[in-house]
Amino acid sequence: MHFTLKDINALNYLYKINLINSVSGFKAANLIATQSKKGTTNVAVFSSVVHYGSNPPILGFVLRPNTVVRNTYDNIKETGFYTINHIYKDIIEEAHHTSAKYPAEISEFYKTTLQEEYLNDFKAPFVKGCAIKMGLKYLEEYHIKANDTILVLGEIVDLYIADDLVSKDGFVNLAKAKTAVINGLDGYAVPEDISRKGYQRPKKEA
Amino acid sequence: MHFTLKDINALNYLYKINLINSVSGFKAANLIATQSKKGTTNVAVFSSVVHYGSNPPILGFVLRPNTVVRNTYDNIKETGFYTINHIYKDIIEEAHHTSAKYPAEISEFYKTTLQEEYLNDFKAPFVKGCAIKMGLKYLEEYHIKANDTILVLGEIVDLYIADDLVSKDGFVNLAKAKTAVINGLDGYAVPEDISRKGYQRPKKEA
Repeated sequence: MHFTLKDINALNYLYKINLINSVSGFKAANLIATQSKKGTTNVAVFSSVVHYGSNPPILGFVLRPNTVVRNTYDNIKETGFYTINHIYKDIIEEAHHTSAKYPAEISEFYKTTLQEEYLNDFKAPFVKGCAIKMGLKYLEEYHIKANDTILVLGEIVDLYIADDLVSKDGFVNLAKAKTAVINGLDGYAVPEDISRKGYQRPKKEA
Repeated sequence: MHFTLKDINALNYLYKINLINSVSGFKAANLIATQSKKGTTNVAVFSSVVHYGSNPPILGFVLRPNTVVRNTYDNIKETGFYTINHIYKDIIEEAHHTSAKYPAEISEFYKTTLQEEYLNDFKAPFVKGCAIKMGLKYLEEYHIKANDTILVLGEIVDLYIADDLVSKDGFVNLAKAKTAVINGLDGYAVPEDISRKGYQRPKKEA
């Protein structure tokens, strides 16, 4: 099948968002949790978390305006802090339900079985049970002119990982963590076998 | 295990990049291919491709300066076009080898078994055999001040997908496509079962 830009733009809305959300490849499956100044918590599934750098440790994620996730943005702007927590096999259903559009005053922690966890006075809740969870400090944001989205960048200031997941060289086996991936808007999978390929050096001429 | 920002910054370099590259979650596995004005092609693995929007269809990816991938950037700036091709099960080894630092005048298509494919006069090569491949037109870029990286945004102007992968509602089953995911810097997996969870609506009060 071949779709030109003109074909894509002319597609039925639901077909289009399913199609275009699928073709970027598998996406990271994370829950971002925040707290307003008044103390109302929020947790929402995000598939756009991306590594920007290790030194300093920086992650980015993308917000689409006019969606429920503006609660996340507003809370981050109020407090300066948020958590990123890996969605894993046992919580996929509950994590995905956070994509439902609840009003800002209702916490998704109340509407799902996901549980808040407070660690070392961090100003946002972590998601209990996640093998990999991070506390981030807001750094900066970019308004994306092309489609009016927002890229938010933060620095990892606290990183919690289950002991048995970290290899001697720092590699974290995400299959052992049962970390999920997202396919399109609503597809989930849990990869089972990780094969490491090593650092690549140029081949010498034959 | 708990790492504070201070702990992370003090880690051995290799341990740190393995650790921090793992904790954002699984990453999309794509090959970005380009061609210089002089006709030298380039293909390189990228794990930072992210969906920015469907309407218009926009994808972003992140470039880290001082790496081999600047060839990709230079070619995109010269021609305005590039392709994004899903890494799939059978080409993981060859795709990962494109991370080796070859000089700009040597095409990774020459150093691997990956093959160029030219479709409908598009100004960059596609990667032959990939079930999902896209031609993109450069839109804009953002210089990320926090760590001197570059976010490049492009619009999908040509989308090629194997016929049997697209569901009636536009969803593309990436497990059927044998699309890979990346774990950290050098881990690969091929998810096998996708479970769709559907669109979520708020639960009514009990």
